Amino acid sequence: MKTTIGFIGLGNLGTPIAKNLIAAGYHLQVYNRTISKADELDQASITKCQSPAEAAAGVNFLVSVLANDAVLTETVTGDEGILKTLPKDAIHISMSTVAPDTADELAELHQQSGNHYLASPVFGRPEAAAAKMLWVCISGDAKIKEAAKPLLETISQGVVDFGDHTSAANVVKLTGNFMILASMEMMAEAYTLAEKFGVDRTKVADFFGSTLFNAPIFKNYGKTIADKKYETVGFTSQLGYKDASLVFKLSQQSQTPMPIANVVHNRLLTALAKGWTERDWAEAISRGVTDDAGI
Amino acid sequence: MKTTIGFIGLGNLGTPIAKNLIAAGYHLQVYNRTISKADELDQASITKCQSPAEAAAGVNFLVSVLANDAVLTETVTGDEGILKTLPKDAIHISMSTVAPDTADELAELHQQSGNHYLASPVFGRPEAAAAKMLWVCISGDAKIKEAAKPLLETISQGVVDFGDHTSAANVVKLTGNFMILASMEMMAEAYTLAEKFGVDRTKVADFFGSTLFNAPIFKNYGKTIADKKYETVGFTSQLGYKDASLVFKLSQQSQTPMPIANVVHNRLLTALAKGWTERDWAEAISRGVTDDAGI
Repeated sequence: MKTTIGFIGLGNLGTPIAKNLIAAGYHLQVYNRTISKADELDQASITKCQSPAEAAAGVNFLVSVLANDAVLTETVTGDEGILKTLPKDAIHISMSTVAPDTADELAELHQQSGNHYLASPVFGRPEAAAAKMLWVCISGDAKIKEAAKPLLETISQGVVDFGDHTSAANVVKLTGNFMILASMEMMAEAYTLAEKFGVDRTKVADFFGSTLFNAPIFKNYGKTIADKKYETVGFTSQLGYKDASLVFKLSQQSQTPMPIANVVHNRLLTALAKGWTERDWAEAISRGVTDDAGI
Repeated sequence: MKTTIGFIGLGNLGTPIAKNLIAAGYHLQVYNRTISKADELDQASITKCQSPAEAAAGVNFLVSVLANDAVLTETVTGDEGILKTLPKDAIHISMSTVAPDTADELAELHQQSGNHYLASPVFGRPEAAAAKMLWVCISGDAKIKEAAKPLLETISQGVVDFGDHTSAANVVKLTGNFMILASMEMMAEAYTLAEKFGVDRTKVADFFGSTLFNAPIFKNYGKTIADKKYETVGFTSQLGYKDASLVFKLSQQSQTPMPIANVVHNRLLTALAKGWTERDWAEAISRGVTDDAGI
């Protein structure tokens, strides 16, 4: 018999993750606010649920991939939240990008209910999730991490452990999203400067992306930014702003002056103000830079 | 008989390049302001010169690797400058990081003298130069580039052509140094934030440097910044400031607002103010960030 796990959140990232869990042989008790999203999953491998509580009933593992701190907190603590039904000793594998404080608070509530919260934020766009090329960051109690690893390995290319503090993985995730944002801003500034001096920005991006900056971020986002082709929305400006805003708060909370974090926060805030909410975050940054430069 | 070329500038980068040219079979007419620097070269393969003019006399190629625009301009146009002696049709291969305007002006003066200026700035620290792992960027007249390529290929892992505008390669070089500076600032901010939240900054740097940011800049400078070990000076803060300042000027000249360029310009200026002039530019940025964060 297939192992049944709970699964909450069928967004751009959640859906390919759910598909890979199904392909790995799990049966999913699925909940999503818009439950029609579950129609594209193999129906024989899922049970559609009407609430987070229903999805969490009777499972050893519940995976959540949610948009932000408020939605995650409601999903856990709401009237029909996970905590109402999640069995004793079960593990909530939380893949959302949220503030460390949120993770610490939810972990405490889970502990009071006799079960566990595992911070497991992931790196990768939807196409990476589909190809099992995500990176999963984890932190917390050793036994919990060990128990969750086999499941996490089926949906990723690697699981990286950041120690025993509950929310360390969340700090790493926000640090990484800050670095992606900063890289996009830096490329947008650099390639726009080159263009202004009559140098082919695509050639410049190709050169750096294949030499000094020969890494996925600079190859993939570099091409998007150099070519100014933003059709594919992998991660919205709205979500990008949420992350920039969380980094900004961490910077204040820890008294770490971060001038580049200020720049990208302002860039995303501007994108929202211009109504680019549902466009890709790479467009928010790249168009922000070219607009400012009058091109 | 060995081909003789002129060579001017035995700094941290010039010296390993000169050694590789000697190893490739060239005889060098060497000039350096402090001529004792030539003592570490194979004496049978060099002729020490008393002036740029003497180094340029009778050669088909003259290579210069100089600190800044003023020194390069003086080397070309001074009373004992290259233009006094460089033969007709000879090529001045100019590897210095200078403003595009400087390159355009010098190219014009060379043309008036019946010879050629080739913008050939290089990417790589001294150890990369020693290992022939530099990248050379070139731009300008096709025939001149073709003639210089064999020489440039002996000292690098690749020669990349940015078209026929004289100073395009200089724009690319400054764009790249801006991206290196921005990357260092971004890593310093990110790893310091992680440290403030109790996460091992070396582990964070290792993770990003081997996954999303799996590229030389993030591996090498990433380790320096994560470990806060700045002993090896490959490129001084003084020179870093010069580049940040040139990028700032290009941003003004082309009306390209570049908020991250402002951040790194200010960071290097602060380093000079603190007297870190001869420290590595990675220290200027990383210590700048940790000092501001009170650690």
